[in-house]
Amino acid sequence: SAETNLRLTLPLTCVILEVILIILFAVLVEYDHETDAKLWHKHLLQHNDSNYNNDFYYRYPSFQDVHVMIFVGFGFLMTFLQRYGFSSVAFNFLIAAFALQWATLMQGFFHGMHGGKIHIGVESMINADFCTGSVLISFGALLGKTSPVQLLLMAVFEVTLFATNEYILLSILQAKDAGGSMTIHTFGAYFGLVVARVLYRPQLDKSKHKNCSVYHSDLFAMIGTIYLWMFWPSFNSAITAHGDDQHRTVMNTYYSLAACTLATFAMSSLVGPGGKLDMVHIQNAALAGGVAVGTAGEMMLTPFGSMAVGFLAGTISTLGYKFLSPVMEKKLKIQDTCGVHNLHGMPGILGAVVGAVTASLATREVYGDGSDVFPEIYAGNFSASEQGVRQAISLAVTLGMALVGGVIVGFILKLPIYSGPPDTICFEDAIYWEVPGEMESQEELGTVMSEEVQKPLNS
Amino acid sequence: SAETNLRLTLPLTCVILEVILIILFAVLVEYDHETDAKLWHKHLLQHNDSNYNNDFYYRYPSFQDVHVMIFVGFGFLMTFLQRYGFSSVAFNFLIAAFALQWATLMQGFFHGMHGGKIHIGVESMINADFCTGSVLISFGALLGKTSPVQLLLMAVFEVTLFATNEYILLSILQAKDAGGSMTIHTFGAYFGLVVARVLYRPQLDKSKHKNCSVYHSDLFAMIGTIYLWMFWPSFNSAITAHGDDQHRTVMNTYYSLAACTLATFAMSSLVGPGGKLDMVHIQNAALAGGVAVGTAGEMMLTPFGSMAVGFLAGTISTLGYKFLSPVMEKKLKIQDTCGVHNLHGMPGILGAVVGAVTASLATREVYGDGSDVFPEIYAGNFSASEQGVRQAISLAVTLGMALVGGVIVGFILKLPIYSGPPDTICFEDAIYWEVPGEMESQEELGTVMSEEVQKPLNS
Amino acid sequence: SAETNLRLTLPLTCVILEVILIILFAVLVEYDHETDAKLWHKHLLQHNDSNYNNDFYYRYPSFQDVHVMIFVGFGFLMTFLQRYGFSSVAFNFLIAAFALQWATLMQGFFHGMHGGKIHIGVESMINADFCTGSVLISFGALLGKTSPVQLLLMAVFEVTLFATNEYILLSILQAKDAGGSMTIHTFGAYFGLVVARVLYRPQLDKSKHKNCSVYHSDLFAMIGTIYLWMFWPSFNSAITAHGDDQHRTVMNTYYSLAACTLATFAMSSLVGPGGKLDMVHIQNAALAGGVAVGTAGEMMLTPFGSMAVGFLAGTISTLGYKFLSPVMEKKLKIQDTCGVHNLHGMPGILGAVVGAVTASLATREVYGDGSDVFPEIYAGNFSASEQGVRQAISLAVTLGMALVGGVIVGFILKLPIYSGPPDTICFEDAIYWEVPGEMESQEELGTVMSEEVQKPLNS
Repeated sequence: SAETNLRLTLPLTCVILEVILIILFAVLVEYDHETDAKLWHKHLLQHNDSNYNNDFYYRYPSFQDVHVMIFVGFGFLMTFLQRYGFSSVAFNFLIAAFALQWATLMQGFFHGMHGGKIHIGVESMINADFCTGSVLISFGALLGKTSPVQLLLMAVFEVTLFATNEYILLSILQAKDAGGSMTIHTFGAYFGLVVARVLYRPQLDKSKHKNCSVYHSDLFAMIGTIYLWMFWPSFNSAITAHGDDQHRTVMNTYYSLAACTLATFAMSSLVGPGGKLDMVHIQNAALAGGVAVGTAGEMMLTPFGSMAVGFLAGTISTLGYKFLSPVMEKKLKIQDTCGVHNLHGMPGILGAVVGAVTASLATREVYGDGSDVFPEIYAGNFSASEQGVRQAISLAVTLGMALVGGVIVGFILKLPIYSGPPDTICFEDAIYWEVPGEMESQEELGTVMSEEVQKPLNS
Repeated sequence: SAETNLRLTLPLTCVILEVILIILFAVLVEYDHETDAKLWHKHLLQHNDSNYNNDFYYRYPSFQDVHVMIFVGFGFLMTFLQRYGFSSVAFNFLIAAFALQWATLMQGFFHGMHGGKIHIGVESMINADFCTGSVLISFGALLGKTSPVQLLLMAVFEVTLFATNEYILLSILQAKDAGGSMTIHTFGAYFGLVVARVLYRPQLDKSKHKNCSVYHSDLFAMIGTIYLWMFWPSFNSAITAHGDDQHRTVMNTYYSLAACTLATFAMSSLVGPGGKLDMVHIQNAALAGGVAVGTAGEMMLTPFGSMAVGFLAGTISTLGYKFLSPVMEKKLKIQDTCGVHNLHGMPGILGAVVGAVTASLATREVYGDGSDVFPEIYAGNFSASEQGVRQAISLAVTLGMALVGGVIVGFILKLPIYSGPPDTICFEDAIYWEVPGEMESQEELGTVMSEEVQKPLNS
Repeated sequence: SAETNLRLTLPLTCVILEVILIILFAVLVEYDHETDAKLWHKHLLQHNDSNYNNDFYYRYPSFQDVHVMIFVGFGFLMTFLQRYGFSSVAFNFLIAAFALQWATLMQGFFHGMHGGKIHIGVESMINADFCTGSVLISFGALLGKTSPVQLLLMAVFEVTLFATNEYILLSILQAKDAGGSMTIHTFGAYFGLVVARVLYRPQLDKSKHKNCSVYHSDLFAMIGTIYLWMFWPSFNSAITAHGDDQHRTVMNTYYSLAACTLATFAMSSLVGPGGKLDMVHIQNAALAGGVAVGTAGEMMLTPFGSMAVGFLAGTISTLGYKFLSPVMEKKLKIQDTCGVHNLHGMPGILGAVVGAVTASLATREVYGDGSDVFPEIYAGNFSASEQGVRQAISLAVTLGMALVGGVIVGFILKLPIYSGPPDTICFEDAIYWEVPGEMESQEELGTVMSEEVQKPLNS
């Protein structure tokens, strides 16, 4: 239909954005000293260093895991929708490919220029993927209800807001948030929820029959879930300091997620009709443990501490999916397709709180000398309590940024100029995609299957 | 139905287990010196070491590959069952998340405490995933026929038995088994087969029509297969000594698996009706080469030696799937859903034998000085022949442990208190899961869809 | 049917090939000095080196990514065909498992023997996977139209031609081609296209209804696409020099692909009916940026340069899928199932050109001292312009090798002795596989198939 015809809007948006990016990169972006041929060789000579000490080897494996989470994890987790798989994977792909380039510029600007240039390397790539993650979280709240043009535009603004917030938290407030419980999860979730509220669709129940999964789409989604779960330790540790920090963050996240999984299965069965498990919980809530130790992961949270946090996160998240999301939809008019509030919102706040508490307990007895985790405390610039307070303020700033930014961007996206779908055909690939046939056998498959499920009940 | 209602049993089991784990971790588990902030920084000063030498960098990439094998490899390989995909992936997920925590304790205890504490780091994480692997192998034999509560309980016992067996083999008998041909594959397979025998279901043919795949479930299973195949080199090398050992183990496994694949296709076509290939063989037997060089992988097996072993393993495994499994089911009453006897059982024994033979041939001419592979031989404590004998005894011990342990645990699991399914509805997700509609709705969906896509055009 | 019965041909081919491989490996192949226990320990002593400096740690993570691209990336990308998923994934698996062993020998021979032996290690494994990649590209052109026996035989020849071409380019002409724009992509594509031309099937439209995707097969294919996209940076950097080279190549590839994705979505929507996107473009053209910086990736291409190249590649590729492929099929009689000309052919040539231009601009101002990228220029053996000319000649040699080799091998494969399918039942798994029920369609399929198989016998 003309209303959802992308032919003018999408090519124009993509081309304009990419041309601007290329021009800005030409003017502003350079290889950093570990990536540039001349600078690296100069470094080797001056510091008598070895090629084996190029930061590439100490960050790239973790970077690749983060990259897989962004493109496979998020992309496939959202394929649970029965008729929106193409859009889920491919719009995720598109937004992420754009956002990581734009984030390189935004974060580079805030991070500090070198002689008027932004320097890039594996660490800036990790940070760009982190920023992209928060845009994809917001996408999750809006999944099925926007055009790709709206998503690209949202990314333009959200990346800028993310970079600003990140700068305020990490550079001004000197907060620690290695795994982004605040900068990525809390920010991305509440920003997305506010945008969803502004874009509230009163007739969305007309598309209700598509806002759900079918058997095999739930299996595709599990590909996403399992990858996110397995690689979250790399995510939380990717930009922590070399050595024990990376190692410890991986362990804390690993144990938090393991405990979270047990909690999720327990809660899901407890609240399910006939004690049955719900795939939505397993797909999403089992990941909350990773979010909840995003901030504290690099701290001396202790293994059992990580497990306790993870168990709590899985419990809260599952109960959120079961009881809170319906309420938020009815009372607050927030139509949160993926339930990001339950996976990234509440666990993000939990992560910030756990981080604040753990930071306020940082002592020399626990951390020893020369801690990379709390350089300011160790330099004597402020006490552990003060660090804890700064963490708490950071949470407040993040929420404020997400709420205000979400309202503004929400109204920008409300303009009817982006080829968005009407309420009646949301969660539907056929609007934006040439969708192939499905096969007659599927239809017969349905009949045969429902007969068989009946048999044991009747016997 | 009340019989399979998990609402009391599963939450109770998960919560009790996790709480016990958290308490035990609180009392017993600490970060090791490469993960603890204070200890690592002390180490850096005392030994004038660098953060770049933290063991994290030399083990984590392999750990991540092992982790993917456990959660994606095993989890998706078992999705071949047409109506058990949810349970396959998700119960695999649940058991593994529990087992890795419990294994950390069990193995930590046997490995040697440090001042009454268990120290954890990336190496303990690898070992915990290894132990988990053997539980998942046993799950493969029972796939479709148990409740998740039975699986968790089985894991409690199996992890303990695994850790005990591993201790006897590696510490007492001084055997080598880096890739677990004995400790993981032989043990996990025969334990699972014995449990399956004890839990024999006389009426299982009533569920026979679901104990098979459909077209797309076979494709999901190939995701599992391909990941297991690609990452097996990391699995076999993950805990070998740094340097040439890791490098060589990777190469041996890589070539063994390549040859195994050719053998599998050859045998499958040879025994197939009309020369047709059978996906079951490609999904499973093509992996046998990895199992068969689990023990010898770190030894100087030579590339062609690895290929010969792999070729033999693929042949044995495929013939096992075709001819042996049906016999085992009819005559021995062992209902082995995934055919673990063909992939882990026989190839595990082959791996033990190859390891024993290769060990008995260890000489200085081949290994040079200071070999990490056979420290006892090099210290002059025993001869290569004696090492070979110790390897053989280890196989016998493993089989004994698996058989006796399997009988005991089998009878514990036979109690009708775990919400297990009756013979008539095995291999069925709908018992434990809220399963979404499948495809009737697709047809109606198709009609509704074309109507709705028309509406905006008409309005 | 007897015509497509693999029972004699496939087992014979696999066994003979594997036995020959094992014998040749026994006679010719040894561990290199980083993999051999004695040699490595001798090296440690002589050079006072550390186990941590074993090349394994500096190449294996990238190797694993390349391995995933070969087995998951290519394998699943080709599952878009609705009834050929088994063959796509599994024949990919089979050919690759064979080709990597054969390539080890061929490349080892050309690379230079050590005392009459071929030395293997992680770097030879990467190179073997690279060579395998080009065979899989050719498979893409022929997808659905050959028997696995033909594919194995093609691999025997193609690997030899690849190794010869690679030697001429890299050792004789001293060209640079780290990511294989010429050696892998251009070569593999044009070789495959020429073979496809020789094997032209005049009645292929009888199988037309199967030469397409269905909804879920397009999602399986996206698994392949996303993995190829994410890991291409590792592919292009896998054999570059340690240090800045690997780091820079990763960045160039990463940015090229991001820009390529935006271009692909833009073009796809622009040329699509009603502005709709086409999954074929997203699955394939979005990857062209990786191919197009294969040669120049390790050079100082600059981030914006990489993005410009990627954007151009995505544009060319998408337009190729839309407008050129149909023309090539009608006018040139090249039936290119996967459109490899659009993803590997044209972008490969673009990559060669970009590489030639970038090389001709190599100056000391840009590269500094001691550049690993252009050792010959730095040794003063030839100028940058000369390097550029050598790059251009290399492209011509590659095309010549592909075209001549493709004709010869094409005619060898045209012999009717390989159990290949007739035109009427191409793109169909049921010929070579025991295909599980899909429910009713299998039954109809059986009828249709036996009718169709009868036709050629009757004509």
